[in-house]
Amino acid sequence: MKKKLNVGMIGCGFMGRVHSNAYRRVPNFFDVEYEPVLKAVCDQNEERLKNFADTWGYESTETDWRKLVERADIDVVEICVPNFLHNEIAIAAAEQGKMVITEKPLARTGAEAEPMVKAVEKAGVHNTVTYNYRRIPAVSLAKQLIDEGKLGKIFHYRANFLQDWTISPDVPQGGKDVWRLDVNAAGSGVLGDLLAHCIDTAIWLNGSISNLSGMTETFVKERQHTETGKVEPVGIDDACTFMCRFQNGSLGLFESTRYARGHKALYTFEINGEHASIKWDLHNLQWLEWFDHTVEGRQRGWSSIHVTDPGDHPYMDRYWVPGLIIGFEHSFVHHAADFLQAVAKGEPCHPTFRDALETQKVCDSVQKSAKSGAWEKV
Amino acid sequence: MKKKLNVGMIGCGFMGRVHSNAYRRVPNFFDVEYEPVLKAVCDQNEERLKNFADTWGYESTETDWRKLVERADIDVVEICVPNFLHNEIAIAAAEQGKMVITEKPLARTGAEAEPMVKAVEKAGVHNTVTYNYRRIPAVSLAKQLIDEGKLGKIFHYRANFLQDWTISPDVPQGGKDVWRLDVNAAGSGVLGDLLAHCIDTAIWLNGSISNLSGMTETFVKERQHTETGKVEPVGIDDACTFMCRFQNGSLGLFESTRYARGHKALYTFEINGEHASIKWDLHNLQWLEWFDHTVEGRQRGWSSIHVTDPGDHPYMDRYWVPGLIIGFEHSFVHHAADFLQAVAKGEPCHPTFRDALETQKVCDSVQKSAKSGAWEKV
Amino acid sequence: MKKKLNVGMIGCGFMGRVHSNAYRRVPNFFDVEYEPVLKAVCDQNEERLKNFADTWGYESTETDWRKLVERADIDVVEICVPNFLHNEIAIAAAEQGKMVITEKPLARTGAEAEPMVKAVEKAGVHNTVTYNYRRIPAVSLAKQLIDEGKLGKIFHYRANFLQDWTISPDVPQGGKDVWRLDVNAAGSGVLGDLLAHCIDTAIWLNGSISNLSGMTETFVKERQHTETGKVEPVGIDDACTFMCRFQNGSLGLFESTRYARGHKALYTFEINGEHASIKWDLHNLQWLEWFDHTVEGRQRGWSSIHVTDPGDHPYMDRYWVPGLIIGFEHSFVHHAADFLQAVAKGEPCHPTFRDALETQKVCDSVQKSAKSGAWEKV
Amino acid sequence: MKKKLNVGMIGCGFMGRVHSNAYRRVPNFFDVEYEPVLKAVCDQNEERLKNFADTWGYESTETDWRKLVERADIDVVEICVPNFLHNEIAIAAAEQGKMVITEKPLARTGAEAEPMVKAVEKAGVHNTVTYNYRRIPAVSLAKQLIDEGKLGKIFHYRANFLQDWTISPDVPQGGKDVWRLDVNAAGSGVLGDLLAHCIDTAIWLNGSISNLSGMTETFVKERQHTETGKVEPVGIDDACTFMCRFQNGSLGLFESTRYARGHKALYTFEINGEHASIKWDLHNLQWLEWFDHTVEGRQRGWSSIHVTDPGDHPYMDRYWVPGLIIGFEHSFVHHAADFLQAVAKGEPCHPTFRDALETQKVCDSVQKSAKSGAWEKV
Repeated sequence: MKKKLNVGMIGCGFMGRVHSNAYRRVPNFFDVEYEPVLKAVCDQNEERLKNFADTWGYESTETDWRKLVERADIDVVEICVPNFLHNEIAIAAAEQGKMVITEKPLARTGAEAEPMVKAVEKAGVHNTVTYNYRRIPAVSLAKQLIDEGKLGKIFHYRANFLQDWTISPDVPQGGKDVWRLDVNAAGSGVLGDLLAHCIDTAIWLNGSISNLSGMTETFVKERQHTETGKVEPVGIDDACTFMCRFQNGSLGLFESTRYARGHKALYTFEINGEHASIKWDLHNLQWLEWFDHTVEGRQRGWSSIHVTDPGDHPYMDRYWVPGLIIGFEHSFVHHAADFLQAVAKGEPCHPTFRDALETQKVCDSVQKSAKSGAWEKV
Repeated sequence: MKKKLNVGMIGCGFMGRVHSNAYRRVPNFFDVEYEPVLKAVCDQNEERLKNFADTWGYESTETDWRKLVERADIDVVEICVPNFLHNEIAIAAAEQGKMVITEKPLARTGAEAEPMVKAVEKAGVHNTVTYNYRRIPAVSLAKQLIDEGKLGKIFHYRANFLQDWTISPDVPQGGKDVWRLDVNAAGSGVLGDLLAHCIDTAIWLNGSISNLSGMTETFVKERQHTETGKVEPVGIDDACTFMCRFQNGSLGLFESTRYARGHKALYTFEINGEHASIKWDLHNLQWLEWFDHTVEGRQRGWSSIHVTDPGDHPYMDRYWVPGLIIGFEHSFVHHAADFLQAVAKGEPCHPTFRDALETQKVCDSVQKSAKSGAWEKV
Repeated sequence: MKKKLNVGMIGCGFMGRVHSNAYRRVPNFFDVEYEPVLKAVCDQNEERLKNFADTWGYESTETDWRKLVERADIDVVEICVPNFLHNEIAIAAAEQGKMVITEKPLARTGAEAEPMVKAVEKAGVHNTVTYNYRRIPAVSLAKQLIDEGKLGKIFHYRANFLQDWTISPDVPQGGKDVWRLDVNAAGSGVLGDLLAHCIDTAIWLNGSISNLSGMTETFVKERQHTETGKVEPVGIDDACTFMCRFQNGSLGLFESTRYARGHKALYTFEINGEHASIKWDLHNLQWLEWFDHTVEGRQRGWSSIHVTDPGDHPYMDRYWVPGLIIGFEHSFVHHAADFLQAVAKGEPCHPTFRDALETQKVCDSVQKSAKSGAWEKV
Repeated sequence: MKKKLNVGMIGCGFMGRVHSNAYRRVPNFFDVEYEPVLKAVCDQNEERLKNFADTWGYESTETDWRKLVERADIDVVEICVPNFLHNEIAIAAAEQGKMVITEKPLARTGAEAEPMVKAVEKAGVHNTVTYNYRRIPAVSLAKQLIDEGKLGKIFHYRANFLQDWTISPDVPQGGKDVWRLDVNAAGSGVLGDLLAHCIDTAIWLNGSISNLSGMTETFVKERQHTETGKVEPVGIDDACTFMCRFQNGSLGLFESTRYARGHKALYTFEINGEHASIKWDLHNLQWLEWFDHTVEGRQRGWSSIHVTDPGDHPYMDRYWVPGLIIGFEHSFVHHAADFLQAVAKGEPCHPTFRDALETQKVCDSVQKSAKSGAWEKV
């Protein structure tokens, strides 16, 4: 008989759906000790809340997150609301002794994130941030190959996350759907939304970043705010780039933008080592590009690995037969499964809040450097 | 309040999992009148059956498919067992007035399939065969573009389905996992397993096939049978190819094999029309390759369409945001959703048994031609 | 001091240019004993002839090919005129004791080709047919890998050559530029023009073809003839396909057409062996796609080999540095260099007329089968 | 009758070959008023010089470049020697009233380049620097599309040039073949060798760069010097990266390295505009990737344009038929043809020395910024 883990979900937007779906799928694919129970869901919009609860099968609803956090029947609090709310909810949840999972980024700034880390560590509760791309099978395979030393000394790490959905000046800012363009709600633009993903993966694969030089730009300076109805200055970065040095001596190059016409959600990274190199991108997430310099010269080339073999590839033994792909949402299924497993074992589930704090500090340094025009330490 | 549709699943193998998953996912993503209820599942292996029922949440189990078919609380019978059982189960289910869904191919031969069609039509029950690839969003988009006449007159249709998992002579035949290599269980080799998919899509996209010339080969002539333990002749085709003429005047070329080293499940089709051409493949199922000759000469090229836009692409409005892909399993989710919708509307859900019978007849003609060495009519 | 080899070129069209260019380039890149001298060029159109001779630096001109063939100062006769003239010129040249190089196909039919083979063999003169694709470095590399046994037993060979330039019914037939559409001049359509290339490479890489089943189609039944000015029946095949069995037990599938919208000159082949597979295409001629099954499972994939390494790849030591590509025309430069080298060594330069006769016989069998509807032996 | 233009080539290395080949080919493919005559070639190594002159058909040789520059029968001086010699030779040639063509970069530094610009302008002689990639047909097509305004406002320009040939610490520095690793001979490492190409193209396509922040790294700190035989400090940059702002408001990101395992000579650029985007890379130089946002949503995607159509694409009318590619060397043929044409018309051939000076100044700013850690103006 499986143990139950009662989930309290806060937020019914895109990420609320993704996380709910992950919990619904885990028991069908992973054999974990804990069975997640969708105990309660919280949103301020009652109609949306009711529909969401019906669709995903939540047992109850709340319109005040504080109530949810205080409920005795909730074991884990899931924070799927805009960034500005992460801090308050996470700390409150930790103080109630709840496990806490939050969407990325951990918070708007390192300053906001720091007390969150303290809170969960003080409470001794399980905590994780859903930087989900670590758990795309191809990315997990990259981690394996790197950890086995197959790349040798690393020279370069480059990553970018390119989108094009805010090019029109008619896209508004603020409110439910476009809070990502409102600096008060989001804290930053592509830096926290996109580049934070790149940074998390980079630190995971290639270690810590020492120092960096950053650049930000806001191409559209004013947008109508959906809440005030007025045209207001845009406070977020539309594009954000930085060069850096990693502690292992390699050089990094990171870019993100929402003005790269033709790219929907193109997260790409490449890592060049002495003996081998790796490339991956989100639009083709089932592939890992792999260059192995130890292969004989004539036959040497970039290999496209279709990361779908149950017998060979991370997580794929839970699914179908070779050649049949899984999608974006499964990275969250894997995160949920790993979290439940970590709880069962009493181990941390990475990235923890503390791991995510490091990413936050890199983001802070990028903003600082973009202002100062100088290299900044992380 | 949603109406319930009680599902009786027969078979706990790969396809049983895929179909069960589809039912589990539908209510989370599609707003259909009917809610599927996983009422009962049937398998001969009791331990496997229990585990399967637990994992997917079936309310009850049966070890005799006849019992399941006769249960009053079952509305729709799902046939996910080896091909040789399709005929008997489907006819029994139809005679009980059950809706019937069967995995492809409909049967081992056209002769076996014919009475199945009659049975469901006589009973007037909803029926469909899960040629799932029609409902990959990129393939559905191809159908839209063709139906709108964007390709103009069609000249060529070519498709192949390439695998490499039976190259080793040590792969056995027969029994639970490798019944696909046992001609008694499967009826044919790659013809019914792989090429049938290509034929179904082709007829859907390009209309009926008039006549054809086929070739089959069995590279490994003997394999150990898992049930008898003896080395026995292999009766299936390891590779199967045919050239054909469609009724619309276009030429077709089809190939399937399990001896194409390097290809896991590479189903590919291409269609060349007067004004435009289309390509698709299963390893990159999120892409549709599109050549539009009406574009100005300098800028003309094959366009890679990332079929993930909720606003533009079939089925994608049910999921996430642009750029985030779904996988193989979702084609079954879509089929299940469309079936439930068809039931609600009292309309047929294609491909029906009758549609699938045409595919079966093409397969028969291929076998006949491979033996006769002559062109055969379908 | 280099020996001279005096070239007599017949034909100033596309292929006349390509062959002249090859001779101009050879001494700059290849260290061969013979230096080709562009002694004379022949064409019926005097203005075109003069311009051509000026551009390429021919020392003299002729308007009657018989005169050129009889000139004592000509060592090698190059036949770059429409197919229907190959037979007569080649035989006359051989009888004059000239070496003979002819553009492919050798002739319109096997019956026409046979006496050409006899003539050059009787005369004991060097002879070759410019099936140039053998000498694309990536294709030469494929040959190396196959000959070393890296693929093991071969199961499948497939090739196609797809174009789209005759889709419009307004394209005329006959005359200088479009003689390829005139059955009297060309002998066949895509069969001799395109598929012959595929067959030559296939025999070279995979051995002889035993028997086959073919299909041809003429989509546009009538076209204006540029010489008569009248709309006349089209006698060539617009599309041609065949399935076959090779003597080594592998299966073949070949297709060519000029109605594949979106493909300019897409010659593609793929060969699947027990241990490895190979793919190549003319639009990306600098790449060889290579799948090596002996690589560890996790890292196994199709490798894209950029065949540009002077240290590793055939012919590339004559050019630049790694990564810098050469083009289509260089395959003719290589053929010319190899021919000159063969002459120096007194060895045959493949494909010889006899080699090319085998291709011709396969073509004949395809035509025969397309008419009979039956499998035909080669 | 064509006018003659007498070429005096200085240097018999890789670039001497490439430039000589360009002159040999121009008259076969381009109808220009001037015919280049390979009058004299100069090198210090007499054996190499003789072989080179024989291979390429130079009429005479010199071992002292000053003599060549002073010869009355030389019209144009071609500088294909290491960077440190560019300044002296170019100025001497200009003072002799010769036209001057130099390999890129113009010089080791802006300070060295400035008097070269003055010298050619004072002398009023034709001058150009062979930043050859502008004349790859796909890149020329990109220029057309940008100049026609098809991209609209530009947001992003990114380029990189990745190689991997110096990863081994056993590669020496200095001397004939590896002068590129010797800071005295080359002036810089990848900055002048690779990134200068990226900068030239960028300024051509996207206008001037205002300011930037750069980073350089030398991974291997010491290498044996081939001339002294001693292990000496490495003075060049192994990797060089910069972020920048263009005067048109777009953001730039540039990277080059010789430590990107798996990349031979991968020069890539991408430009994102409001309405369209463009990508190109040198390993696939025959393709232009094109995203046109004005296409209807469903069919929108990145188009791969095979830039080989004589009727549509820059320079391609000089070659073969659609689908048949040309290579790296042809970019120099085009440059040579354009130079001869410019001479005939009395117009400048871009990039001129003055154009190339701007690239040099960007390079200087990169070095300055890499040292200062601050943003620097160009």
